[in-house]
Amino acid sequence: MFSRIDHIGVAVEQIEPALELYRDSFQLRVAHREVVEQQGVEAVLLDIGDGHVELLAPLAADTPVGRFLAKQGPGLHHVAYQVADIAQTLQALRQAGLELIDEHPRVGIRGSRVAFMHPRATAGVLTEIVEPAAGVEAH
Amino acid sequence: MFSRIDHIGVAVEQIEPALELYRDSFQLRVAHREVVEQQGVEAVLLDIGDGHVELLAPLAADTPVGRFLAKQGPGLHHVAYQVADIAQTLQALRQAGLELIDEHPRVGIRGSRVAFMHPRATAGVLTEIVEPAAGVEAH
Repeated sequence: MFSRIDHIGVAVEQIEPALELYRDSFQLRVAHREVVEQQGVEAVLLDIGDGHVELLAPLAADTPVGRFLAKQGPGLHHVAYQVADIAQTLQALRQAGLELIDEHPRVGIRGSRVAFMHPRATAGVLTEIVEPAAGVEAH
Repeated sequence: MFSRIDHIGVAVEQIEPALELYRDSFQLRVAHREVVEQQGVEAVLLDIGDGHVELLAPLAADTPVGRFLAKQGPGLHHVAYQVADIAQTLQALRQAGLELIDEHPRVGIRGSRVAFMHPRATAGVLTEIVEPAAGVEAH
């Protein structure tokens, strides 16, 4: 059902100090940087093996990541698993009785198609599935 | 410095309901199960691609994972990056000025050698590095 850990999402107050840690100290390569207005974040993807670390800084306090930071401070925000066919996987998750935030895929970073399950259904872990855009390999 | 995301650690109150989610609904294969007395947890590793999901249930309330659950409930607990040479990596992290919890590697699950960085140094993310035991491949 899931082929790999696609990325971990890390909520940060500001991108630049986090880049100093992940790019400079941990020596991960920056693969992509994008403002995703729809989700209210600036996001940076850094390569690690076949996967990524995704840094997420809120565009405003009244956004999902802004509220997350206000509630519990910076830290691990979500995990994303890569799937080959997101529509098929959503169908299988529904059949398994999992509560979904997104009944249908929406557009994520780098033109991927993504959907989130509800943390109530996943023991408190905000869990995303992601089908990369055609031509965008994981590394 | 880091070759891949080795695993995400997920803190849970009890192993069995979490297994129903990760093994039965998400269809991940259980690779290993171990009581790690030194860390006060029962841990289950499930395979996903080259990496793992590690479920962590506390053996008692007065353990690191027990205190984590009391403070913020079940959810993402840590991320672990795989390294080829943990002693060399610790040396490089020290030189980069990172604050470490473990100055020297200690024994982790499945005979691996592990060390944790302090979340103060890593923007709130409890970050582990892990060198697998010889002969234990990631999958």
